[in-house]
Amino acid sequence: MVSERLKKQIEFIVEIDKVKQIARQNYVTGGERRETDAEHSWHLAVMALLLAEYASGPADMIKTLKMVLIHDLVEIDAGDTYCFDEQAVKTQKKREETAANRIFGLLPADQARDFRAVWEEFEAGLTMEARLAAALDRLQPLLLHYHTAGRSWREHGITSSKVKERNRLTRELSPQICELVEDVIERAVQKGYLAE
Amino acid sequence: MVSERLKKQIEFIVEIDKVKQIARQNYVTGGERRETDAEHSWHLAVMALLLAEYASGPADMIKTLKMVLIHDLVEIDAGDTYCFDEQAVKTQKKREETAANRIFGLLPADQARDFRAVWEEFEAGLTMEARLAAALDRLQPLLLHYHTAGRSWREHGITSSKVKERNRLTRELSPQICELVEDVIERAVQKGYLAE
Repeated sequence: MVSERLKKQIEFIVEIDKVKQIARQNYVTGGERRETDAEHSWHLAVMALLLAEYASGPADMIKTLKMVLIHDLVEIDAGDTYCFDEQAVKTQKKREETAANRIFGLLPADQARDFRAVWEEFEAGLTMEARLAAALDRLQPLLLHYHTAGRSWREHGITSSKVKERNRLTRELSPQICELVEDVIERAVQKGYLAE
Repeated sequence: MVSERLKKQIEFIVEIDKVKQIARQNYVTGGERRETDAEHSWHLAVMALLLAEYASGPADMIKTLKMVLIHDLVEIDAGDTYCFDEQAVKTQKKREETAANRIFGLLPADQARDFRAVWEEFEAGLTMEARLAAALDRLQPLLLHYHTAGRSWREHGITSSKVKERNRLTRELSPQICELVEDVIERAVQKGYLAE
């Protein structure tokens, strides 16, 4: 007999397969199609392993990985909210809270509480882990936008000042990452990928 | 000035975006398209967080997550080797070693050594972390095959005995996971998703 606990875990694992259907605004390198939420989360996790050394203080690696791995699960119900869509951003919080109740609620109570708490900590953005995760969540699409010749930026008429504001968090993470972000934005403007 | 170390890390991070172009044999739920390596690796990482409690001994969670997050990077050069393609399996080891040299070699030396060692430990399959990672690497596609009505199994004429042999590792992980795997295979045969 498969236990009720394991059944719940498997139900959750199958349910979250749906984030592979959620397309983000940015394209993958090569440029044929948009990235999925699952691919984005995977990329952030590898980046966390490599770039945590630039955070301004020590971050718990397991918690940081958990955050980046599950931060987009709420989009299964709430959809991907494009960060420059001001109307959608207004209703985002409520839509995502409702989604979190349903999706994390599929898990056994202890694991539901743990994932929910980690997601809320990410959303609050106050701890070192949350700040690191949020900075990576900005840096990763910046790199993909640059390496797809700004296709998505150009489609939406995004300007460098919007991207700079969006990457404020990234630039606060560390002086080295700040320089990297400035450099990528400057080169994107020079190459015409991003409007000034 | 962006440091040489950070430049190498970013070069690696952009290079590994290519695993989003590598299609696996199994379909994502919904069934319209095959899963990418990046999506698969993300799914394994979330599964590791939830299912490590079933491993027959304690596993270092960071190492396990690293393993599942990077185990398929070699496929950027070596391609996805379908586990039931006996010819391809013969040359897989050599192709993947060469790929590991190039891909991990993009990183700063300390991180290259760390990722390479973790990948080799995964490949050797001897430690608890490697056994847990390998078991999840079998269980995840089994779940997706089942939830896409065995589409990929049917396309390749796969039988239940092949799937049972393939999931030997999974069944060794713990009695609970063994029961789950047996149950999924039995239901797949009953529903005609999998040939006997």
